Amino acid sequence: MKKLINNPLKCADELVEGLVEAYNGECRHVGARSIVKNDIPEGKVALLIGGGSGHEPIYHGLVGRNLADGAACGDIFAAPPPNIVLEATEAVNRGKGVLYLYGNYAGDVLNFDLGAELASDDDIEVRTVLIWDDVCSAPPTQKHNRRGIAGLVPIVKLAGAASQKVSTLEELEALAKKAVLQTRSVGVSMSPGSIPATGKPTFDIDEDKIGLGMGIHGEPGVGEIPMTTADELTAQMLELIIADFEKDEEVAALAPGDEILLLVNSLGATTMMELLIALRKAKAILTERGLKIYDVLIGPFVTCQEMSGISFSITRLDDELKGYWDMPCQSVCYSKMEGRNGG
Amino acid sequence: MKKLINNPLKCADELVEGLVEAYNGECRHVGARSIVKNDIPEGKVALLIGGGSGHEPIYHGLVGRNLADGAACGDIFAAPPPNIVLEATEAVNRGKGVLYLYGNYAGDVLNFDLGAELASDDDIEVRTVLIWDDVCSAPPTQKHNRRGIAGLVPIVKLAGAASQKVSTLEELEALAKKAVLQTRSVGVSMSPGSIPATGKPTFDIDEDKIGLGMGIHGEPGVGEIPMTTADELTAQMLELIIADFEKDEEVAALAPGDEILLLVNSLGATTMMELLIALRKAKAILTERGLKIYDVLIGPFVTCQEMSGISFSITRLDDELKGYWDMPCQSVCYSKMEGRNGG
Repeated sequence: MKKLINNPLKCADELVEGLVEAYNGECRHVGARSIVKNDIPEGKVALLIGGGSGHEPIYHGLVGRNLADGAACGDIFAAPPPNIVLEATEAVNRGKGVLYLYGNYAGDVLNFDLGAELASDDDIEVRTVLIWDDVCSAPPTQKHNRRGIAGLVPIVKLAGAASQKVSTLEELEALAKKAVLQTRSVGVSMSPGSIPATGKPTFDIDEDKIGLGMGIHGEPGVGEIPMTTADELTAQMLELIIADFEKDEEVAALAPGDEILLLVNSLGATTMMELLIALRKAKAILTERGLKIYDVLIGPFVTCQEMSGISFSITRLDDELKGYWDMPCQSVCYSKMEGRNGG
Repeated sequence: MKKLINNPLKCADELVEGLVEAYNGECRHVGARSIVKNDIPEGKVALLIGGGSGHEPIYHGLVGRNLADGAACGDIFAAPPPNIVLEATEAVNRGKGVLYLYGNYAGDVLNFDLGAELASDDDIEVRTVLIWDDVCSAPPTQKHNRRGIAGLVPIVKLAGAASQKVSTLEELEALAKKAVLQTRSVGVSMSPGSIPATGKPTFDIDEDKIGLGMGIHGEPGVGEIPMTTADELTAQMLELIIADFEKDEEVAALAPGDEILLLVNSLGATTMMELLIALRKAKAILTERGLKIYDVLIGPFVTCQEMSGISFSITRLDDELKGYWDMPCQSVCYSKMEGRNGG
């Protein structure tokens, strides 16, 4: 893979510099490697996200208007170190506390927790909500051990909107937990991305196989299945999400009349053509079950370099979440006008 | 390349079906293969775009709020036939005429012109503005022979906003011509995409070469250059755009104080990480020349399946164009809130 880079060891630093330029004055570079909004009002409950680089446009691309206030950015596929978490925390804090909202990976949890400890020395109150939407990475009884994948896009969008409206950290924490609880994803990979520093692929997979439930770095999921059609794979993936809502005792099964967000995500090289073909089938399956699609997100949001693969995420909405969804937002990763498509 | 499709010969039909679902009720499928907004008001000057499929999210993904009213969709890498152009024209027409705005490719010109002739039998007035932003495909003296590439995104955005405000087809035509005249792009390709129906790559290129000015299907440009760093390639590409504004007698050279839109586009598999690294350098080069970046667009907008490559586009804005840029828009390809980043 020919990559347009300068120094393989400086990709994370340079991409965050570029990200700041993409925001064109909305955001600034803070400390070692954080990106923070310039206009966070005094007294606002702050929302901080973050994680490893290399998955662009997430995580750091979800900083923006009615979205996150800042992001602590790690090196390629590596958690941000505690000092970066602390610098970002101090920069977004406006006296009402900071919610950490990020994907459940061991390194991120360790470093964000250390960052929170350091922040408590500065009397900054921090709460943490982990995103664990990847159904295939652990059974429903161990759902808090699951990885965070593309479901973080609607979750951060909803929490970002809420962070504009709530008056306490507890309210924002509760809203984010609700969004996480109602969000489930299933992903597949068909071919690997490569690590910029080495040029090496992140995993191997046979030409005629698909990694069902494989993580966004190639972590194991349910197993390998034969390459199949878009329609068959879509049905198989959605079935896993629907079954998970059924099996989890903490949430209701998806029922006719339920309103959902549907996200179809590309892991990188999988084309928008393929996403659209899969969406066509997904819409038919979900509509047949009586589910109402409140809005659709489609595109390469959560990627792993030039990996090919696709994921579906479903977020069930109630009136509170719909209100936050309807708010406009703007960022490098996801932007929308007020309201919703088809509304 | 493992593609998630069903029938290689039905990709265009199925992706347009999926696109309609992505709009979730905002748009509908019309005739053989067009997508048209549902809420076009009576008396509105209509904007119709279109072109071959396979380049998603363009062209058809630029139908939307404050964007195009409809798109005539061709098969993969093929112009929409005249009957499809006619069906789309009839569906968007609200009695004030229809502007055709699309990329300058021989097949598209032939078929849209035939569509316009058929529409004139129905007393629908049609004007056409061609997009020819690809600097490397012909010299400035023959700029009307150039191909249309990623510059169509800001051009359609500006024309879509204007189409909400103008009262005559002539006004919309003039605005679109102005946007085209002020937009220039340069692209490179590093590796090909493949044609869904055959699985075959659209061109060949050596592992250590870059196709400078290569078109979005692999058409020849300036020639092959050695693979280089992101910073060096960015400088080389921007120089070609800047030189073109200088050489063209119909427009002023880019001068200090000029306000521009900067678009950094991925041809498909090139990652957002790479785009951001290139943007970082582009911003430095343009700022050093005294140009003011009014807003930045970055992402995979104009693609050729899993092709790797990148393009830069610059649109110079005046007060009228800035006013139209600031309007919000929403579509599968590009969405924004009111105003601009950093504004």
